[in-house]
Amino acid sequence: MRNILIIGAGKSTAQLIKYLADKASSENLQLIIADRDLAQAQALAGNYDCANAITLDIYNVEDRKEQITKADIVISMLPARLHIDVARDCLALSKNLVTASYISDAMKELDDEVKKKGLVFMNEVGLDPGIDHMSAMRVIDRVRDAGGKMLLFESFCGGLVAPESDTNLWNYKFTWNPRNVVLAGQGGAAEFIQEGTYKYIPYQRLFRRTEFLDVEGYGRFEAYANRNSLKYRSIYGLEDILTLYRGTMRRVGFSRAWNLFVQLGMTDDSYTLQNTEAMSYREFTNLFLPYSPTDSVQLKLRHMLKIDQDDLLWDKLLELDLFDDTKKIGLKNATPAQCLQRILEDQWTLAETDKDMIVMYHKFGYEINGKKKQIDATMVSVGANQTYTAMAKTVGLPVGIAALKILNKEITTPGVQLPIRREVYNPILEELEENGIIFKEYEVPYLGYNPHHQ
Amino acid sequence: MRNILIIGAGKSTAQLIKYLADKASSENLQLIIADRDLAQAQALAGNYDCANAITLDIYNVEDRKEQITKADIVISMLPARLHIDVARDCLALSKNLVTASYISDAMKELDDEVKKKGLVFMNEVGLDPGIDHMSAMRVIDRVRDAGGKMLLFESFCGGLVAPESDTNLWNYKFTWNPRNVVLAGQGGAAEFIQEGTYKYIPYQRLFRRTEFLDVEGYGRFEAYANRNSLKYRSIYGLEDILTLYRGTMRRVGFSRAWNLFVQLGMTDDSYTLQNTEAMSYREFTNLFLPYSPTDSVQLKLRHMLKIDQDDLLWDKLLELDLFDDTKKIGLKNATPAQCLQRILEDQWTLAETDKDMIVMYHKFGYEINGKKKQIDATMVSVGANQTYTAMAKTVGLPVGIAALKILNKEITTPGVQLPIRREVYNPILEELEENGIIFKEYEVPYLGYNPHHQ
Repeated sequence: MRNILIIGAGKSTAQLIKYLADKASSENLQLIIADRDLAQAQALAGNYDCANAITLDIYNVEDRKEQITKADIVISMLPARLHIDVARDCLALSKNLVTASYISDAMKELDDEVKKKGLVFMNEVGLDPGIDHMSAMRVIDRVRDAGGKMLLFESFCGGLVAPESDTNLWNYKFTWNPRNVVLAGQGGAAEFIQEGTYKYIPYQRLFRRTEFLDVEGYGRFEAYANRNSLKYRSIYGLEDILTLYRGTMRRVGFSRAWNLFVQLGMTDDSYTLQNTEAMSYREFTNLFLPYSPTDSVQLKLRHMLKIDQDDLLWDKLLELDLFDDTKKIGLKNATPAQCLQRILEDQWTLAETDKDMIVMYHKFGYEINGKKKQIDATMVSVGANQTYTAMAKTVGLPVGIAALKILNKEITTPGVQLPIRREVYNPILEELEENGIIFKEYEVPYLGYNPHHQ
Repeated sequence: MRNILIIGAGKSTAQLIKYLADKASSENLQLIIADRDLAQAQALAGNYDCANAITLDIYNVEDRKEQITKADIVISMLPARLHIDVARDCLALSKNLVTASYISDAMKELDDEVKKKGLVFMNEVGLDPGIDHMSAMRVIDRVRDAGGKMLLFESFCGGLVAPESDTNLWNYKFTWNPRNVVLAGQGGAAEFIQEGTYKYIPYQRLFRRTEFLDVEGYGRFEAYANRNSLKYRSIYGLEDILTLYRGTMRRVGFSRAWNLFVQLGMTDDSYTLQNTEAMSYREFTNLFLPYSPTDSVQLKLRHMLKIDQDDLLWDKLLELDLFDDTKKIGLKNATPAQCLQRILEDQWTLAETDKDMIVMYHKFGYEINGKKKQIDATMVSVGANQTYTAMAKTVGLPVGIAALKILNKEITTPGVQLPIRREVYNPILEELEENGIIFKEYEVPYLGYNPHHQ
């Protein structure tokens, strides 16, 4: 029997446990599901003979070390900031570790010692980061192996609602942490390069600088820029690339409407408003509009943002009850962003029967034998239900696959790492395909940028 | 002989010294002008028999105490954060103190001890803060003394270029710290109340929510909201006031054009750009525009910001050489805001012969004997030249007047304070009037807000 310790029984853990439990008898696996909340761990372990739920307070050093000592490999599904304590224990106790989070500076510092002990600390092996790395590097390495030179890499991902559950004018529901959606893009300008030229988009323009993306069978999407695309130059070995851009996908029209909230100031999380508990949605909206003795909140908003009454933008605002004077915010000392989240949750919360959808889109531009070419690769995953969501599947499956392959010594190169080497991404992507997570590739004409213009 | 120690020989000190030097023989004054930079202190002291320049390192505790010991009163014209060390010495050595800066929390904490020793620590006695407090409280107290109830207080101030020196399309030149102008309005939403309703304007809307103000003999101005108007409720005793708003004045059209920089992201000071030293103005502008293989930087900007070619906005941008590919930024590792400041300084730096202008505008709405009334009060001060600027005069004169009146025991109420009591503002405003700093008052119809609308 090999013991797999899974710390943290959150949303994406259900699919991970199902994957490992299905392999338990053939692979001789015993799963220990550890969470601060025993009931939550039990709910996940409940149906499987191979799984035991235990209570674990991550801040209790002795308990933590005791459980890690008993494990053959550790999977940390904790919030990102909590991985480092687990990682230090794994290093001290010589255990391999898997996480789905970005490598922190503290984690990176362990690299030398992890290598010395011959351990594998695999991070960023969920969806984004995770499947994005693996699917991108597979094509980039193939282009290079054939003698091509990468010119352009653009990569987009979105967590959306599945077409069959897409029932509102925004074509959007919260499939993950709503707070992150409301605050998306804040904290600095988006930075990227196009044809060798640096480009910067401030928050107040972010949702007006979108790009369209067509996905076969799923129609058209749009994407707005992520904050930092440039770090992928060194990670993917694309130091000389002319165009590097990463973005977040939404259905067409979402960003133009979301920009109204940005312009009004409703997404601001830096200060608290007065008297928010008894405030109506209408009063909240009026906070951001000029005073008028005669004009309605509706007309003031339409005038300020120049929205015609037959513009779909207007219907999107009406759908959210922004002008309702009976619905109350009901939050004490809330920021504008917290109030807006509260309003959006009325309409954008997934119903019991709703399904989510993950969409990923890569563009690879390259030059080979004097010719410029482009490959577009797309992946769509639709959730089964509210437990086995597309998000849980695309995060949990690669984590589980990676853990098992490390346990079985199919992945052995030691170090603190992310899944960008062939040894790692090839077997994981193959097994993801067997589970329906499939990238379709298309040869498309290379976008003809002319370097003499700017 | 009475010794006045003036610490800090900055821009607004020239007028202060001239005022005190003119009174030196009649009032038996000896001025000690102390600065880290002796040459700067000497330049200010040079022409006056009554004035001595000395070197003073404000961080040298012994020197500082020695000079304060010899003084009969201390005027600190240092940057605001440096007042507190001087203030603590003044308290220990039982000296009165005058500054033109906002009262910091640390300064406020000295109040009890200052009162116990019977000392006067007069702060916020320059222009803004200073003349604004005094001129506002004079009218507010008069309204109350007559049995009126304040309904509305709006107050605006601007440092601008004098009409005779107003030679560019923006009707603006830098008359004070350019960096503060570029960063104006950043760091949080502007918060105020109108007719009892809280209002918030985010930075990205700030320069589109302006109010017009007509000043007799000087034409029309506009104003955008300052960040925090609400603190004046408690300072001025206006806890129940329905409308409270403070703003910054510009010539009409400035804000609409400035908003272009805000929307582009050029005023951002939170990150540094790549390769700014050799970057042309055109390249800088292009950083914030989408890449295009065919379209010019000009057309991309016009399209993105929807500027018609016959719009004066466009001429304002051309005047600044934003599309020039020969002019270079010439700054290493600069933020967008630093680059923009560099570009603006080409056109907005005062010429040798240019004069500046200070404009202040108050609106007082009140109810008396069942009738609603309004008084508007305006003040304009035009600089004499580049040494005796309107800014130096309106900051330096009230500081000098206050210092002399404290020295002469005409102002005696002890404590850490600002000039909002009759004992203080009446004599200072009278003497300012003798020096040409005069508020004109107008009875105007009260703006008829209807509390049943919002």
